[in-house]
Amino acid sequence: MLTQIAGGVCAPKGFRANGVHCGIRKNKTKKDLALIVADVKCATACVYTTNLVKGAPILVTKQNVADGYAQAVICNSGNANTCNADGVEIAEKMCELVREYTGINAGDVVVASTGVIGQKLSLDPIIAGMPALCEGLGDHSTAAAEAIMTTDTVAKEIAFSFTAGGKECRIGAICKGVGMICPNMATMLMFVTTDVAISPAMLQKALSADVKKSLNMVSVDRDTSTNDTLCVMASGLAGNAEITEANADYRAFCRALNAVTTAMCRKIARDGEGATKLIECRVSGASSLKNARLVAKSVINSPLLKAAMFGSDANWGRVLCAIGYSGAKLDVEKVDVVFRSAAGTLPVCKDGSGLEFSEDFAKRVLSEEEIVIDVDLNGGNFRATAWGCDLTYDYVKINGDYRT
Amino acid sequence: MLTQIAGGVCAPKGFRANGVHCGIRKNKTKKDLALIVADVKCATACVYTTNLVKGAPILVTKQNVADGYAQAVICNSGNANTCNADGVEIAEKMCELVREYTGINAGDVVVASTGVIGQKLSLDPIIAGMPALCEGLGDHSTAAAEAIMTTDTVAKEIAFSFTAGGKECRIGAICKGVGMICPNMATMLMFVTTDVAISPAMLQKALSADVKKSLNMVSVDRDTSTNDTLCVMASGLAGNAEITEANADYRAFCRALNAVTTAMCRKIARDGEGATKLIECRVSGASSLKNARLVAKSVINSPLLKAAMFGSDANWGRVLCAIGYSGAKLDVEKVDVVFRSAAGTLPVCKDGSGLEFSEDFAKRVLSEEEIVIDVDLNGGNFRATAWGCDLTYDYVKINGDYRT
Repeated sequence: MLTQIAGGVCAPKGFRANGVHCGIRKNKTKKDLALIVADVKCATACVYTTNLVKGAPILVTKQNVADGYAQAVICNSGNANTCNADGVEIAEKMCELVREYTGINAGDVVVASTGVIGQKLSLDPIIAGMPALCEGLGDHSTAAAEAIMTTDTVAKEIAFSFTAGGKECRIGAICKGVGMICPNMATMLMFVTTDVAISPAMLQKALSADVKKSLNMVSVDRDTSTNDTLCVMASGLAGNAEITEANADYRAFCRALNAVTTAMCRKIARDGEGATKLIECRVSGASSLKNARLVAKSVINSPLLKAAMFGSDANWGRVLCAIGYSGAKLDVEKVDVVFRSAAGTLPVCKDGSGLEFSEDFAKRVLSEEEIVIDVDLNGGNFRATAWGCDLTYDYVKINGDYRT
Repeated sequence: MLTQIAGGVCAPKGFRANGVHCGIRKNKTKKDLALIVADVKCATACVYTTNLVKGAPILVTKQNVADGYAQAVICNSGNANTCNADGVEIAEKMCELVREYTGINAGDVVVASTGVIGQKLSLDPIIAGMPALCEGLGDHSTAAAEAIMTTDTVAKEIAFSFTAGGKECRIGAICKGVGMICPNMATMLMFVTTDVAISPAMLQKALSADVKKSLNMVSVDRDTSTNDTLCVMASGLAGNAEITEANADYRAFCRALNAVTTAMCRKIARDGEGATKLIECRVSGASSLKNARLVAKSVINSPLLKAAMFGSDANWGRVLCAIGYSGAKLDVEKVDVVFRSAAGTLPVCKDGSGLEFSEDFAKRVLSEEEIVIDVDLNGGNFRATAWGCDLTYDYVKINGDYRT
């Protein structure tokens, strides 16, 4: 029994958060420093980018959560602290600042940065911002969500309650997108809190399994970031018997975790840089899970299809083309494709060949803000869903002068 | 000794060509039907798209060149004849029309189509266009090049003369781009003619080796087309002793072939849909050829880097990011990156970390129409070059309503 609730990362018992503008970003109206602290040490699981170029904060975070526990998250936006000779030193000092102001062991801090790659990150604004950041700690999930935004147009947070071991538990999250988004065994930045009692091993197992079907299935531009970090912290304050095996409570937690990550996937794709539409590709009839995922990802990644969706053009040939080069094993002559939206259902391809359809109706279907592309490979029982967005003038505009 | 000459596909001895508007495309000012005929049967080699969705013409062409010989090429634009139930039948009838009007055996015809996928291709305009197309056959390489254009803004043709067996030989080509361009063991449409005498086996060997370093290293949008076809026809009329082994003449031909394909790669990338700039990534110091190619392709494919190039923004972090997710084995801490153009040389990254540079000078360097990105991995002796283009508003505009 899963119920959406308010509060974001502060919904679970034992978590406080805050976000402030400390001066890393020039625009004073944009917060750029976030902090999440727990009242107790939390079982903690993380996944990171698979990019060989890794942000310095990831190297420090990996050390700090190696024991399976953490108690705080500090994250800045406006600078990725990546490809900087002194990056690790700066990231470690950020953890030290958290200890100084909260008493939490620097070795229990998750540190993350997001923004421009390859520009030195000065500690000065962070030092200057710490007093206000820490004094303001409280039920401020939204402020923290705002402080990790880069090109995001909306703050992203969500929370659910669920039951484990007869106890009501809560799980909440904040995250940011929305460019350089093509997670690979990891994702952009997302911080998830829960008060469920669960062992670090089971928490990592749940997270690693979940990202394969959630965040690894989102793509805005096929650019896998250097700083992707997804962190889940479990305080255990819900009072349920600690989850130490794959039992019914574990499955209840996994469902709650997937509800959080899937909701965030849709938020990220919908807010993709310059996006006007959420594109969801639902593949069925695949001969394997791998093939289903290859096809779904390939379709939502096609720049040609993304541009066609922006133009509300039912150019289904581009869907077939993307299916064909996806690398998945399939029989092209069995492929069916249907475009769906709130405006109706439009079958466009049957057995790999085109169907007649009304261009006017097609325009209406594709002019909606959420487009579903159903692909039935008619070759098995495996399914996968991927989330993306359309390719627009604004994506080019945003990224033509992001840095300067 | 390689000399660029005029004449395109008609430069080599024994070839005539023409292109006309027959009515497949609504715009009467755009030619849409091309024909190349040889006076003699030609040793012929082809490579095709690896997309599982293959245009019907490819299936027919594969049969017709299975014996290693062909004598004519017919190609239409405006419709890809792909994902049509009757596609093979239509493609076969196009070959039959060539026999009817030229006497060339239908089984010696290379047939190709390019344009929208999944719309029925009517034979009527082709039948109507054949008389004028064939009566006009002559030294009209440019007309043929124009007739295979889709979103291309310029016709693409080139020719060189070279020496083999003491005889002057010629090689010429026409091709089209410029969207759905990410060749994989094949390319968009390119037709190459030569009068060198060479066996079909050696011709195929030369072609298959060449595309790995030429056309497979071009990408406009990472969308591998369904109709990619590259065909080389050798009339043998230059009078050189037939090349039947990998001797000096073979190497001379390979150099000439690579001069043609590389020149076309640059034309295709420079004319990429909406492109304002040619982006050339030259990778050196790789530990293997595979790694060099992975890195070069990854850099020119990054939408974020492509958009930054459009904005003349020296956002080299995006180069590092693309190198990092390329899949190549390398040491990030050894990577050097330099931006170069006619306006100067701008080192931006040394040993994986950023260098100080003048933003004004960077803008000048990146405002040129041809940008070279030098990447030295400092980890070996292998090199590769890839060609791409910037990502602009016009790419979105062109593809937002290409079909309708």
